Amino acid sequence: MNRYIKPDKWNIIEEGFSAENVPSSESIFSIGNGRMGQRANFEEQYSGNTLQGNYIAGVYYPDKTKVGWWKNGYPEYFAKVLNAANWIGINVQVNGEELDLAKIKVADFQRVLNMHEGYLSRSFQATMNNGNEIRVDTRRFLSIVDDNIGAIRYTLIADNFTGTITLTPYLDADVVNEDSNYDEKFWEAISQESAGNNALVLARTKKTGFVVATGMVFELWKNGKLLSVNPINTVKEKYAACEVTIDIAEGDELVIYKFATNVSSFNHPEKELAAVAKSELAKAQNKHFNQLLHEQKDAWAAKWEESDITIDGDVAAQQAIRFNIFQLNQTYTGEDERLNIGPKGFTGEKYGGSTYWDTEAYCLPFYLATADKHVARNLLLYRYKQLGKAIENATKLGFNHGSALFPMVTMNGEECHNEWEITFEEIHRNGAIAFAVYNYVNYTGDEDYLKDFGLELLIGISRFWSQRITWSDRLNKFVMLGVTGPNEYENNVDNNWYTNKLACWCLDYTREVIDRVKTANPNKYLALSAKIGFNENEETKRWNEITQNMHFPESKELGVFLQQDNYLNKEQILVKDLDPKHRPINQKWSWDRILRSCFIKQADTLQGIYLFEDKFDIDTIERNFDFYESRTLHESSLSPCVHSILAAKLNKMEKAYELYLRTSRLDLDDYNCEVGEGLHITSMAGTWMSVVHGFGGFRVFNGKIHLNPRTPKDWDSFSFKIRFRGSVLKINAFKERVEVQNFSDIQVPLIIFGKEYLIDSNDKILINN
Amino acid sequence: MNRYIKPDKWNIIEEGFSAENVPSSESIFSIGNGRMGQRANFEEQYSGNTLQGNYIAGVYYPDKTKVGWWKNGYPEYFAKVLNAANWIGINVQVNGEELDLAKIKVADFQRVLNMHEGYLSRSFQATMNNGNEIRVDTRRFLSIVDDNIGAIRYTLIADNFTGTITLTPYLDADVVNEDSNYDEKFWEAISQESAGNNALVLARTKKTGFVVATGMVFELWKNGKLLSVNPINTVKEKYAACEVTIDIAEGDELVIYKFATNVSSFNHPEKELAAVAKSELAKAQNKHFNQLLHEQKDAWAAKWEESDITIDGDVAAQQAIRFNIFQLNQTYTGEDERLNIGPKGFTGEKYGGSTYWDTEAYCLPFYLATADKHVARNLLLYRYKQLGKAIENATKLGFNHGSALFPMVTMNGEECHNEWEITFEEIHRNGAIAFAVYNYVNYTGDEDYLKDFGLELLIGISRFWSQRITWSDRLNKFVMLGVTGPNEYENNVDNNWYTNKLACWCLDYTREVIDRVKTANPNKYLALSAKIGFNENEETKRWNEITQNMHFPESKELGVFLQQDNYLNKEQILVKDLDPKHRPINQKWSWDRILRSCFIKQADTLQGIYLFEDKFDIDTIERNFDFYESRTLHESSLSPCVHSILAAKLNKMEKAYELYLRTSRLDLDDYNCEVGEGLHITSMAGTWMSVVHGFGGFRVFNGKIHLNPRTPKDWDSFSFKIRFRGSVLKINAFKERVEVQNFSDIQVPLIIFGKEYLIDSNDKILINN
Repeated sequence: MNRYIKPDKWNIIEEGFSAENVPSSESIFSIGNGRMGQRANFEEQYSGNTLQGNYIAGVYYPDKTKVGWWKNGYPEYFAKVLNAANWIGINVQVNGEELDLAKIKVADFQRVLNMHEGYLSRSFQATMNNGNEIRVDTRRFLSIVDDNIGAIRYTLIADNFTGTITLTPYLDADVVNEDSNYDEKFWEAISQESAGNNALVLARTKKTGFVVATGMVFELWKNGKLLSVNPINTVKEKYAACEVTIDIAEGDELVIYKFATNVSSFNHPEKELAAVAKSELAKAQNKHFNQLLHEQKDAWAAKWEESDITIDGDVAAQQAIRFNIFQLNQTYTGEDERLNIGPKGFTGEKYGGSTYWDTEAYCLPFYLATADKHVARNLLLYRYKQLGKAIENATKLGFNHGSALFPMVTMNGEECHNEWEITFEEIHRNGAIAFAVYNYVNYTGDEDYLKDFGLELLIGISRFWSQRITWSDRLNKFVMLGVTGPNEYENNVDNNWYTNKLACWCLDYTREVIDRVKTANPNKYLALSAKIGFNENEETKRWNEITQNMHFPESKELGVFLQQDNYLNKEQILVKDLDPKHRPINQKWSWDRILRSCFIKQADTLQGIYLFEDKFDIDTIERNFDFYESRTLHESSLSPCVHSILAAKLNKMEKAYELYLRTSRLDLDDYNCEVGEGLHITSMAGTWMSVVHGFGGFRVFNGKIHLNPRTPKDWDSFSFKIRFRGSVLKINAFKERVEVQNFSDIQVPLIIFGKEYLIDSNDKILINN
Repeated sequence: MNRYIKPDKWNIIEEGFSAENVPSSESIFSIGNGRMGQRANFEEQYSGNTLQGNYIAGVYYPDKTKVGWWKNGYPEYFAKVLNAANWIGINVQVNGEELDLAKIKVADFQRVLNMHEGYLSRSFQATMNNGNEIRVDTRRFLSIVDDNIGAIRYTLIADNFTGTITLTPYLDADVVNEDSNYDEKFWEAISQESAGNNALVLARTKKTGFVVATGMVFELWKNGKLLSVNPINTVKEKYAACEVTIDIAEGDELVIYKFATNVSSFNHPEKELAAVAKSELAKAQNKHFNQLLHEQKDAWAAKWEESDITIDGDVAAQQAIRFNIFQLNQTYTGEDERLNIGPKGFTGEKYGGSTYWDTEAYCLPFYLATADKHVARNLLLYRYKQLGKAIENATKLGFNHGSALFPMVTMNGEECHNEWEITFEEIHRNGAIAFAVYNYVNYTGDEDYLKDFGLELLIGISRFWSQRITWSDRLNKFVMLGVTGPNEYENNVDNNWYTNKLACWCLDYTREVIDRVKTANPNKYLALSAKIGFNENEETKRWNEITQNMHFPESKELGVFLQQDNYLNKEQILVKDLDPKHRPINQKWSWDRILRSCFIKQADTLQGIYLFEDKFDIDTIERNFDFYESRTLHESSLSPCVHSILAAKLNKMEKAYELYLRTSRLDLDDYNCEVGEGLHITSMAGTWMSVVHGFGGFRVFNGKIHLNPRTPKDWDSFSFKIRFRGSVLKINAFKERVEVQNFSDIQVPLIIFGKEYLIDSNDKILINN
């Protein structure tokens, strides 16, 4: 835990310079626009501890895996999120001395991430070792309107001296990746040029051959007047710079505007990249800083209009939820179905890959409710397009007949993870991907998706389950052996309740979808069956046998489902009885000790209950919640949100609120002491769920919205917006009433506190608790 | 499987040159003397596929571990067996053309490992590309009398040409390790010199700083006369050579004798190494080749006198058992308690480390029965001296109060393995180390070992079990969760029957030893208790509770013990019903598929039954044997021997014989297609056990020898020798009788086929079946 962010409704604020907090703030104050992202590294040189990061969506490097003992089936490579060319750099020399916050005296340091308008600003007063005092004020953003463009305004005021200031805006693709298995650099030079106020560097990733053109153009203004300068242009491999030295008198104000672009072969033919970069730069310079920023504000206002959540009476909670929503919107816009939502987004390198089950299990509900339908649909299509590779992957592991196993971690559909207990056994991910199809169709009503894409994917996954599940003579039941559930503090267990549940649900749902598609589109169904050699009678017969005779571990005595067959054989200790000095156990304990203990990283049984909550009575939910929450350490960022949602449902409001703070301020307050590595982007969607599904009690069953808002004690009220099948609703929840506004031209039926209502177009209703 | 070794009772013979078999033969024809070992690499250059290897006992390199995802508790390094300086090299040029068997025509190639006399010879006829024909005949050995010395006689005959032959004997420490995690070289130069007929290279291992001095001196003889030559002496970093060019007429015979030495800082002060090396070389040259070889033959004759096993009527079986015994005696002599028996001995690099549980579980019985008591005692002392590090290791994993966990793989007592399911969970090794103490004392009657060393080690291990075992409320029993048994085809299971059995046995045995030491040496016991803070009452009370209430999984219905709690939940398929195209599954199947299957690498339940066979009736043993043998793939080299022993006990002689061939000819016939990586040295001791314990039915219970010889159908008879408490017995087993000869001056009581006999000193008895 490290709390230094100042509370504010719309801004993330750091005051005072602390070298220790630099890596953390670099993550927290990251900016991004879905196409690229930039950690809050300083423009000027910084020789202190820092993680430099500029990331370009879709551009990755297949690093050789590092593995102690090879196991059959391991992937050949691990896709790395790539630190790309530094485009923000502006070296500053004051009378020949380098401005470097690690080496001089800094005062009045302030950093602000303006979430409402979508920019990062920073200001400080510096006393150089030569005694010169300057004030610096910077502002930068990555445009979400022109998503190839970044813009910087960097202002210096000479407070107490006369002399020179040398500014060197530069581009540098000779960067390192912290997350590199063999300490290699991942970029090779193509070309670098610097002329006048312009520079351009083209570099190519090794192996994958992605080319990124990074360009810049700058302007220098002194005391409000544009200077005509004659820079010294320098290039070296992967580097290009323009150096300008300006005479300065005391009180002079110098402003450098740096416009930059990153364009990649992911989106443009390689040979056009230099031209595209130059034209993007011309556009940026033409619009100039203020117009670009103005457009940025408008675009962000529109995003907030769709996705804002307000919380009254609790600034920390308000700031946190907006921070989560802001970062989600910076990471993924849904405009490109080749992209996905990496666990650290554009804020760090750790974990590699861009796609985990987090996308389907945590992120999808956020985009379903706050963005146009095509955004969620693109997330689904991303997986559908990788179905072939999922089938290849399953084949490699010994499955056949079109069985599909989607990867644990991937960039392009190929598995990238190499720990057997995860790569081969954390197969619940397949269930999350199937559930996302259900979730999407249930929410949007887009039945066509099933016949065009959904059913084929569901059959591939069901075929996998059908082969992965085996018959146990001893138990006289079907079983699923050797799996790892979302609770990764148990590995290679038999009959993980959550995975079994999800697998059986998937088999049933696939049969249901078969019937629906067959009825609505018999020809389409026949064509699909022929394409994938589907023998409906025979295959679904086994699916049915499985779901009718599946083994689900439970304790009748305790009235709880068991997360795996042998869980109760463990010594049962509650978190409250664990000496805090042992926490987090993933840092304090050896791995075997964690595995043997009853302690839970995230309670997958509760996750299953959350997914299928309509199948369980409230007492069952409560017994399981009490049992598992008391054993759960929440050492996964994905854990507290689900517990918070169930706690709210069970009206355990203090617990729900405690867990909400934990998920929503995980990064702002650095609960796990590792925010410097990057933000937990995907768990931010879980935070959103904990407000909307948790406190809001929002659900969609059978095409209808359900609401059961409950306002935490510390809040006066909260509100959120929901897009649903052409309508836009705003829910204002107060302690004793709830108000629902319909901003659309259609009538919306919905169920509030169990009672059915109909809200007229552009009308609102008010219900007392 | 690759069968090309010619059957012979005393020799290993390869005929005809095959480049494909070079790596395999390099392993099979390896020579060693306990202090060092040398693969059967060619003296002359060879540009084909080869694994060059010269290994020096005790000299290792701590390579950085390579691991995909770090787990708490992993070791920092992995100790590598080191390829050291090449001391055998003699480059040969015939009229300027390099002799390289990969590049010329080879005829009449023969390689012979003379096991009776302890040397390797090789001969061939070569037609150079220039048309010159030569015959080559080489012989070399590593002296077991002067264990710093190696000697080579290399003979060339010019068959059809006149001209020159250039010979370049050299030393080269600029070698690579195939088993290197980061492709680094492990040696750095200290010095190299070459003068006259002598050369000396000193090199130091990185990090560990071992220094090895490798020296050579050579002589050149032409047609029986010593030549006075004036070599061209060359040195470069880590390399020294002497080049001599000799005029040759058709029919001339040229002989080069190369005497070499390897001496290391493991045995001598670093600053004396050069002098030691030179004095060793002088001694070697003085004795010269024939005397050294003569001494070698005598010394090997003495070893065979002690450890030979004869098998009449089955040459393949006879050759195999001698090969196993020969390699064991080449690997470990028992003279240095800092050394141990690496799984590949001096024949390859794979697996690293020098010490596995193989030593205690497989090798100890061989050395107990065929060598002086101090040899087995040194193997035990090796572990005792590492007790402190075993306690450190357990502490690192969260155990306390002097709990000891010995490493899975080690050089110096520190754990070197880094797979959580093995490093942290394959803890049965602790049991094997405790059992070795019992085994040694039971065999030798050396009770003093207990008070001086054994008890302290036993208490450390028992303290570990006591903490590792936990109470299960659900089962109302003590349990051991999250372990991996010797059957590594199941990982992280609960209640591995073998490990539970061994742990409980250890707790009981430790209590028994406490009583014995306390009675015999009360002061010694008090001193030890004080030293290690042993609270006998409290600690042994829990041990007793555990052993009285331990959970052992079993199937009452099938009448078998279960190798782990959930084993029967697996789909039960027999090996005979597995399509052979899937074997070996460790090469054909992904790891998860192996783990989920019921197939067994080595049946640890049977291993447990073998250790404690006097605790089970014969029907129980047979039921378990039939159950597990039919599910066991024997994909561990350590597997078939135990099954063979039990099969012999159960009078399943065909099965016993089949498994004997598998264990004894594992390397000679390359069952697993990987002998090129090195020999399976430790499993060779298992082969010895399968004859002596298996067919011989040899056991020691309560200080008395038991024999139940059974001769396989294919054998006329077999014999083996046993040292036992001052006596030496030879057992000759025939189909219908057994003859036991007592070569000692003491009477020996023993039990044959269940009946008690007493053999007088230097007498023999003959018993009919």
